Amino acid sequence: MPYFDTASAAPLHPVARQALLAALDEGWADPARLYREGRRARLLLDAAREAAAEAVGCRPDELVFTPSGTHAVHAGVAGALAGRRRVGGHLVVSAVEHSSVLHAAQAHAAGGGTVTEVAVDRFGAASPAGYAASLTSTTALACLQSANHEVGTVQPVAEVAEVCAAAGVPLLVDAAQSLGWGPVEGGWSVLTASAHKWGGPPGVGLLAVRKGVRFAPQGPADERESGRSPGFGNLPAVVAAAASLRAVRAEADAEAARLRVLVDRIRRRVARLVPDVEVVGHADRRLPHLVTFSCLYVDGETLLHELDRAGWSVSSGSSCTSSTLTPSHVLRAMGVLSEGNVRVSLPRGTTAEEVNGFLDVLPRAVAGVRAELGVPDPSASAATPVAESVEVDALGLRCPQPVIELARAIGTVPVGGTVTVLSDDEVARLDIPAWCAMRGHVYLDETPRPIGAAYRVRRAV
Amino acid sequence: MPYFDTASAAPLHPVARQALLAALDEGWADPARLYREGRRARLLLDAAREAAAEAVGCRPDELVFTPSGTHAVHAGVAGALAGRRRVGGHLVVSAVEHSSVLHAAQAHAAGGGTVTEVAVDRFGAASPAGYAASLTSTTALACLQSANHEVGTVQPVAEVAEVCAAAGVPLLVDAAQSLGWGPVEGGWSVLTASAHKWGGPPGVGLLAVRKGVRFAPQGPADERESGRSPGFGNLPAVVAAAASLRAVRAEADAEAARLRVLVDRIRRRVARLVPDVEVVGHADRRLPHLVTFSCLYVDGETLLHELDRAGWSVSSGSSCTSSTLTPSHVLRAMGVLSEGNVRVSLPRGTTAEEVNGFLDVLPRAVAGVRAELGVPDPSASAATPVAESVEVDALGLRCPQPVIELARAIGTVPVGGTVTVLSDDEVARLDIPAWCAMRGHVYLDETPRPIGAAYRVRRAV
Repeated sequence: MPYFDTASAAPLHPVARQALLAALDEGWADPARLYREGRRARLLLDAAREAAAEAVGCRPDELVFTPSGTHAVHAGVAGALAGRRRVGGHLVVSAVEHSSVLHAAQAHAAGGGTVTEVAVDRFGAASPAGYAASLTSTTALACLQSANHEVGTVQPVAEVAEVCAAAGVPLLVDAAQSLGWGPVEGGWSVLTASAHKWGGPPGVGLLAVRKGVRFAPQGPADERESGRSPGFGNLPAVVAAAASLRAVRAEADAEAARLRVLVDRIRRRVARLVPDVEVVGHADRRLPHLVTFSCLYVDGETLLHELDRAGWSVSSGSSCTSSTLTPSHVLRAMGVLSEGNVRVSLPRGTTAEEVNGFLDVLPRAVAGVRAELGVPDPSASAATPVAESVEVDALGLRCPQPVIELARAIGTVPVGGTVTVLSDDEVARLDIPAWCAMRGHVYLDETPRPIGAAYRVRRAV
Repeated sequence: MPYFDTASAAPLHPVARQALLAALDEGWADPARLYREGRRARLLLDAAREAAAEAVGCRPDELVFTPSGTHAVHAGVAGALAGRRRVGGHLVVSAVEHSSVLHAAQAHAAGGGTVTEVAVDRFGAASPAGYAASLTSTTALACLQSANHEVGTVQPVAEVAEVCAAAGVPLLVDAAQSLGWGPVEGGWSVLTASAHKWGGPPGVGLLAVRKGVRFAPQGPADERESGRSPGFGNLPAVVAAAASLRAVRAEADAEAARLRVLVDRIRRRVARLVPDVEVVGHADRRLPHLVTFSCLYVDGETLLHELDRAGWSVSSGSSCTSSTLTPSHVLRAMGVLSEGNVRVSLPRGTTAEEVNGFLDVLPRAVAGVRAELGVPDPSASAATPVAESVEVDALGLRCPQPVIELARAIGTVPVGGTVTVLSDDEVARLDIPAWCAMRGHVYLDETPRPIGAAYRVRRAV
């Protein structure tokens, strides 16, 4: 059964599995011990660090292993901020960082620091100019992901690193989504990554801090991993992580070229096969294996269930905020439609047949969900207008219903007339303007109401 | 080759290995996902939590998995302290806690909190009265290990929990060394443990927080594991940890009885076979598999190398401070000899033959190290005294040399005369009084000198 959510977690790479098994036998002892089992563990740890450092493009003594990518991010952000505390407490992040970076930023703000979020364009890309404008004399750290985890857009890391270097500000790069495909180019200062994203085992993150970067580890002291990652190390997993990183890198270019063709096909065919769909993310500057699109008048969770029932595992919206029922912060920052959002991330080895099978199932699944929701007939907008302006009460309705109500109502006003939608669903703020952009109508404004808000739309076509 | 350092790390239990392999195939996906791979992972996670909670003696929703025992301790101490911030910032710990607890306490103190260390007796045991005397109206948390990791002494957790409950103070119990042997008795509030201590894989700690205990997780937010342990979980390792905990518990009583006999033999025979040795830790209230002793006139590291060369892996002093060359904080708190310290912790399945082999090798190894160091002939103290008082310059000499110099000099003064040892070795403060107690001489006092200190000893026999 095809699993198309490798950006969330990947099955263990065969090399990782083999290395893990060997290291379970050889690497269970404490590498800090002097006896033979400890010395053997130390040799394995040193070799894993050298291999991982080579893949990252840093010195072995600049790299430590953490229990997860999230731990690497939390430790990296806190350590880099503390290392430059005397400069100031200002942190700059892009608006589309992974939740681990944004949560670290929130913790920094809660502790009295200030945070600037750099806006992104409609493709999810941050700009060097956006960073340049955000850096101040008190900026202690800037963070930028190497590529976005939800829409696959590759960020201009090298250019942003130059801007940061010119301002004397260190740049932390969260390379979780891209490190399996290649090293991060440019003059980064701190780099984080997560092994289970490239087919390594869970339980391993990477934290690299360039020599010369001021870094003060936070939290209780611990002498392991240069004082930057406390706790007894997970050596078998570390060995497996390093071995699999080397293995996936060896085949990365060929596999990227192959998957890029499949993803291009999905991007083209989805736009053609599914009505009212918005393919999001940058068309060229993107990860080779990831594509995201949003379907009007579709409930993402129901669509996922339909696809799951048909045998395809994909994800929707932001991985870390799905249970909170708020729209993905990435899609929100991009200003694109969030309803009916589907992220497809192909594992290495995905075949054209599997992709074709998905493209066969998807249009039917979307149509099925829409039929259940009672989506308005597109010809409804040709109906005779009944009034210059109409107010639609969508209070209590959840995504995608407010947008469906709006689509139903737009035909009841003449071109130039307005529809006002009352909604207390957080998603309306994002999806009503997105609907307008897709449909060619004019989004006017939002006015707070005692419950929810009123969103005004002018019919333009 | 016998490995006698299971208190540091244990080879993977066969059940853990089997469970880990199965879970690598079944449990690699994100348990928060809605598709089949995610649901399967969720089922495994729920089952592991239930099994671990049953072994701990708590509800499943009271228990979370962390990346290590150290992470559990750091998160548990910080969360419990923050949960009672309004009560005050006073933390009570025993003087012989694991370094992870003491480091958490240091971080608390660095952040403006206050810390009281409860003293222990010569066997390493804390007393309920010691805790009662330390609790104040501003005490937010008390910590006590279930059993000591260096000398095996079992702590009076249930009694201390009663004292704490009477004062309305939650008690955090670090059960790292004992959880494989049985649940922690008594009314603890927070409990921490580490899977690789019981033969589970590295990368898994347990943090249990009883319902009703005020707990405020610290650090950046993360919705996983009830917000108490951030980062993508290490599910295969968690499954293996829970399975192996159940497996070792099933055989714990029988194995404990068997190992207790072997440890008793080591305690008795070491005292008989090795001259000038001090077996430390409580004779009865102790872990079944762990025994520690210190050998006068012996350099611990050299002895470990000798034993390693002969095929036995043991550890010395505090695992976490060995590289700092300061004496173990546990032995220091107990006031017992630290030089030539050896900790033997038997893995499950250790045979009487292996123990006999160790007892055969040990006396020769100790004698060899002493011969190299030029240890004084015991009959030297019968030599003719040359002066009422003698000063020995041991500046620049490292453990065990200052004590060897003292032993050489004691025969040069008459009974009632004094020897003053000048030493800048930190260990002298602990080992000179310990030597006096072992030899029957009177330790008088210590006076600071421009370099190091002067330690005065009165010859009594």
